[in-house]
Amino acid sequence: MLDATEVPPSSLDPQVARRLKRDANGLVCAVVQQHDTGQVLMVGWMDDEALARTLTTGRVTFWSRSRQEYWRKGDTSGHEQHVRGVALDCDGDALLVRVDQIGPACHTGTTSCFDGRDLAVVTSVGGAS
Amino acid sequence: MLDATEVPPSSLDPQVARRLKRDANGLVCAVVQQHDTGQVLMVGWMDDEALARTLTTGRVTFWSRSRQEYWRKGDTSGHEQHVRGVALDCDGDALLVRVDQIGPACHTGTTSCFDGRDLAVVTSVGGAS
Repeated sequence: MLDATEVPPSSLDPQVARRLKRDANGLVCAVVQQHDTGQVLMVGWMDDEALARTLTTGRVTFWSRSRQEYWRKGDTSGHEQHVRGVALDCDGDALLVRVDQIGPACHTGTTSCFDGRDLAVVTSVGGAS
Repeated sequence: MLDATEVPPSSLDPQVARRLKRDANGLVCAVVQQHDTGQVLMVGWMDDEALARTLTTGRVTFWSRSRQEYWRKGDTSGHEQHVRGVALDCDGDALLVRVDQIGPACHTGTTSCFDGRDLAVVTSVGGAS
């Protein structure tokens, strides 16, 4: 795990930066949700600078683990995510980013990266309905 | 990153296991969403065995990174999560678990781990409404 002294400099508000519990690569996961329908669109990853850009530019920016570079969603595809709100969870290792998504969120063309990808489950028997 | 030969044995369907893209600790992140309201409740982590238990027992089970043990949500708190559906995203590194949540999901007593934890944002100017 990185300690605070190993986090690269960023433009993130230090008061927010202090609350982040980053993984060994300096990242927190970011759940992206369509603000009006509640649909969960995708999960991405942010370092401090990606979060700072997301909070201040109105556009969602991730850190691409595969390409090792910043990735402002929609710059290539046109499928931009306009930020409506961002919340950090109770233990500081996950973000909920509420957006207005332009076009499909998934690179495969589905609205959400989870669409049509259900796994077989045995649902609870006698659970609350 | 673990390769397939390093993944511990589990009861997970091998066809599902082959689709998982695990992090260096053998985990994928699991976004938990209330099935009817769409509220995102929390983010947890699952290894193959935690996912297998979630898919087959009707109750959400995580791998606790801090305690290094399986954690069936609600066993201590009573705040159980009853599984309604599970989807794996397009690149295999995130799960969306739709549940019926009993009581608050957050250990702090809030419904969601994100409730009341909004960060200050500058929203998009001239973006789609």
